[in-house]
Amino acid sequence: MSAKIRPLSGFPELLPAARAVEREVIASLSRTFELHGFTNIETRVVEPLDRLAKGGEIDKEIYVLQRLQQGGETSEAELGMHFDLTVPFARYVLEHAGHLEFPFRRFQIQPVWRGERPQEGRYRQFTQADVDIVGRDVLDFHHDVEVMRVMVEALDALPVPALSFQFNNRKLIQGFYRGLGVPDVTAAIRTIDKLDKLPGEKVAELLVSDAGATPEQAERCLALATIRVPDTSFVEQVRALGVTDDLLDEGLAELAAVIEGCSAAERRHVSVEANLRIARGLDYYTGTVVEIFMDGYERLKSVGGGGRYDALASDGRTTYPGVGVSFGVSRSLIPLLADGVLAGSRPVPSAVLIAVTSEDSRPESDAIAAALRAHGVPCEVAPTAAKFGKQIRTAERRGIPYVWFTGETGHQVKDIRTGEQVDADPATWAPPHDDLRPKVVSRTDQEQNQ
Amino acid sequence: MSAKIRPLSGFPELLPAARAVEREVIASLSRTFELHGFTNIETRVVEPLDRLAKGGEIDKEIYVLQRLQQGGETSEAELGMHFDLTVPFARYVLEHAGHLEFPFRRFQIQPVWRGERPQEGRYRQFTQADVDIVGRDVLDFHHDVEVMRVMVEALDALPVPALSFQFNNRKLIQGFYRGLGVPDVTAAIRTIDKLDKLPGEKVAELLVSDAGATPEQAERCLALATIRVPDTSFVEQVRALGVTDDLLDEGLAELAAVIEGCSAAERRHVSVEANLRIARGLDYYTGTVVEIFMDGYERLKSVGGGGRYDALASDGRTTYPGVGVSFGVSRSLIPLLADGVLAGSRPVPSAVLIAVTSEDSRPESDAIAAALRAHGVPCEVAPTAAKFGKQIRTAERRGIPYVWFTGETGHQVKDIRTGEQVDADPATWAPPHDDLRPKVVSRTDQEQNQ
Repeated sequence: MSAKIRPLSGFPELLPAARAVEREVIASLSRTFELHGFTNIETRVVEPLDRLAKGGEIDKEIYVLQRLQQGGETSEAELGMHFDLTVPFARYVLEHAGHLEFPFRRFQIQPVWRGERPQEGRYRQFTQADVDIVGRDVLDFHHDVEVMRVMVEALDALPVPALSFQFNNRKLIQGFYRGLGVPDVTAAIRTIDKLDKLPGEKVAELLVSDAGATPEQAERCLALATIRVPDTSFVEQVRALGVTDDLLDEGLAELAAVIEGCSAAERRHVSVEANLRIARGLDYYTGTVVEIFMDGYERLKSVGGGGRYDALASDGRTTYPGVGVSFGVSRSLIPLLADGVLAGSRPVPSAVLIAVTSEDSRPESDAIAAALRAHGVPCEVAPTAAKFGKQIRTAERRGIPYVWFTGETGHQVKDIRTGEQVDADPATWAPPHDDLRPKVVSRTDQEQNQ
Repeated sequence: MSAKIRPLSGFPELLPAARAVEREVIASLSRTFELHGFTNIETRVVEPLDRLAKGGEIDKEIYVLQRLQQGGETSEAELGMHFDLTVPFARYVLEHAGHLEFPFRRFQIQPVWRGERPQEGRYRQFTQADVDIVGRDVLDFHHDVEVMRVMVEALDALPVPALSFQFNNRKLIQGFYRGLGVPDVTAAIRTIDKLDKLPGEKVAELLVSDAGATPEQAERCLALATIRVPDTSFVEQVRALGVTDDLLDEGLAELAAVIEGCSAAERRHVSVEANLRIARGLDYYTGTVVEIFMDGYERLKSVGGGGRYDALASDGRTTYPGVGVSFGVSRSLIPLLADGVLAGSRPVPSAVLIAVTSEDSRPESDAIAAALRAHGVPCEVAPTAAKFGKQIRTAERRGIPYVWFTGETGHQVKDIRTGEQVDADPATWAPPHDDLRPKVVSRTDQEQNQ
């Protein structure tokens, strides 16, 4: 292999201690999802190109697969790498519908690929965690509340900074615009979505020019979009704008139920808001929508989002409505790891290094390691029978907290952080629970504890 | 989304219950590797094409990535999908050497991609589990024993049929051929490797024609290749062939140490053999080599393999020797799942379905679920307030063993397999340990238990 290796821009790779953090985050998310009865699936990373490329913005970011040397096979299907987990999930549901029970509750944690310009929080390969419920023909609204509450709980258990779930409802917006009499409701939604890039007056102008609104209608659209409260008081504030519409009523009731359902329990660091300017660009949302923001990392834009789609998938005869939410594992973790907000406590699983007195006695050290492993203590045997001082430094460099010595007087284990050394039996000794496995060290936790 | 979804040949996808089996296998492998102090890494799935394509057999199977629409960027690096986990690991070691401690012990469980013709056990996307130890400049031989023993232990813990580790040593073969005076040792190794496809006499002919051996030398090469024993008695058998050579001596001692080291403990279903015809085609092995076979699935050829490479990676100044072994997770599991040898006990994590008496009382059912989850019981709330009989059938169809009812007389939980229904407190009730999570059901286990 040749010299000079440079990182590939947009394809971040984690060193062992950081990877331990990512694994713990993924394990924690999975634990919560499974406690709520969501089953894990993985889809293949490729899809037929015609399923991915739908003429949208994303198309130019799709990676296409080709064989280096095309063999005798002529008509190999054109394949592309999936750019999210929703498109492959929809295809999975259609392909395997006969073998699934509906409502089908699944979570999926996999990398996705987008050929976009790399920047902080934006990568070409990055991991997403999606949780969705999909029904056959129908999917009761209470599943909206359920799936959002699951993600609130899952993220509340993570060692990350405070997160804010900002909810809205497409029916609420559409009903309001319709009740108000805005001529082009779709254009209006698309225009209001620009509020985070353009000033209010500019958006008002666009509502007039692009959506056919009167200046007074535009003003009330903006008034709606400025409503942002941590409880259900938005209902009265919207009513005060004087618009009545059946769809608006439905949207208000749904959004209130989501806010109430997600606020029910005490949370550690996740808060919930109704934010009536959240629209989410994608056209297929039809009810609940959500975006998730991380405290101090507003520059990343949302670190997650999702909503209700009345037609996640359809095979012509059967329609599959769904509701789900996605969390950007790489998008949030990689900046936190880079900033030192999160770190792994050590780069190796080993809690103990078994010292080797001489190469002849390596089998005895192996036997001690086997005894420790038999009751679940991760450990490794020193690579060389160097002087004990050097073996201790080996443990130090690897972040291993304990070194095990065997001498004429029997077994002893040393905590190399304190220097304390005690007699120990390999059949029963275990480190304190906190030392057993690598942990996630969170700067915010440390600060809170001070 | 359109109709008519057909599976993509070579890209198998697992239904939820089968995926639960795969997850448990991956978790079990990870547990063993971590108990032995191996740290997990993941590498990005793409590598620069010039690092993957080295003019070998594999080149024509490499998938190359291209953007659907090339944008303004002109000189995007040519990227290919990795076809194993060794090439990316070697690159990872070179790229991050300054941040790693050597010997670096890592495991890696990821999919790889090969555009080969799909057949049983051969897929275009498949998951491998690799465990390796890599040193800087030097790597003591005892690590060969260590890494092989770790994989023996890891596979012994899996719910799969009996597995056989068949070991050999390149030094042994090379030293034997050299001591025997075979002119072209490399050609001889390559020829002997054909013994599983060609009869002995044909291989003997090729040894004469391609490796320049005399008929008598060819006969002794074949005699060496037929030695296959479950212990270290091969040493005497080789000595009896009357060849002496320093490298042969080294190889014999190493192979004996590996066989002894891997046989030391009692195993459930993994056996170990010295099989002196194992050569492994790849040229970079320099000592220990191993192939792993699965009982009753010899048609899959090996389900794993690996060995020692004195130059896993090099940056010109520093060389990184390594030793490792890879297990084909998909290659072994997918046929076992297809044949019903392995199955998941249920397709959902939920152990309990909380019945809903009426939609009005759904929040009460939610509260029961929350109480169960708080002490680690995975559960879900019934999707509709149908008649109880229908809710029980919902649980049945999903494979959920318990249904929770709340009535005027308090809480009761029913084991729907036995019909037994008992009073229960949501704050403390838990199912028997065996029912808590989906399990791997192994037909071989069942047969053994009968």
